[in-house]
Amino acid sequence: MNLNDAIKWNEQGLVAAIAQDWQSGEVLMQAWMNAESLAMTVREGKVVYWSRSRQALWRKGESSGNEQQLKELRVDCDGDCVLLKVEQRGGIACHTGRRSCFYRLAGESGELQVVDAVIRDPGEMYGK
Amino acid sequence: MNLNDAIKWNEQGLVAAIAQDWQSGEVLMQAWMNAESLAMTVREGKVVYWSRSRQALWRKGESSGNEQQLKELRVDCDGDCVLLKVEQRGGIACHTGRRSCFYRLAGESGELQVVDAVIRDPGEMYGK
Repeated sequence: MNLNDAIKWNEQGLVAAIAQDWQSGEVLMQAWMNAESLAMTVREGKVVYWSRSRQALWRKGESSGNEQQLKELRVDCDGDCVLLKVEQRGGIACHTGRRSCFYRLAGESGELQVVDAVIRDPGEMYGK
Repeated sequence: MNLNDAIKWNEQGLVAAIAQDWQSGEVLMQAWMNAESLAMTVREGKVVYWSRSRQALWRKGESSGNEQQLKELRVDCDGDCVLLKVEQRGGIACHTGRRSCFYRLAGESGELQVVDAVIRDPGEMYGK
């Protein structure tokens, strides 16, 4: 079966995408892809998402430099999610300047705590 | 900030959830939670999803026995995804009897290949 036949696009024509560091296994971020961005990702070997807020192709790292080099792409059993194993350029996936977007840990009462440090100042990352 | 204030529920009142093996780092599955299932997960320490197909609470493992014990819960920067680090009972997250739902690997042409073995026969898992 081909990738395109396996994907079940949602009502917005998107599929969920999880980016995971190909070496450490750390989950870096979750975003969305449309058919065009998925095809570009496979073809170019660099991750391209679909930005729902901007309604535009989002070449990851286009403004921050923090590109994601695709090492492996997997599809889940029901075809509504892809897992991207990536090499994260600059070691920063999050727009806050942290390695991963999942930097807030929930305590037993549901209270959130920021547990990961900012590696690079976002102002510097995106140009002030 | 509290978990409930951090989550941005989508138009169906759901948030994406990624389950990751807390020890190996393997991404096991992606599913959805509503407010009730998220609260139950935090309170009980066992993962409860919202089944979109059944439109009902989905206590993971309720029929297969493959429960997920919650070890850690994180929220991403924009609050539309939670990362669950879990201990996967039985070592099987997928309804196909495989460890992970992401058992299909895309080749360079987009051709998919099943790369992970069935550990337990689904017929046996769910009772015939």
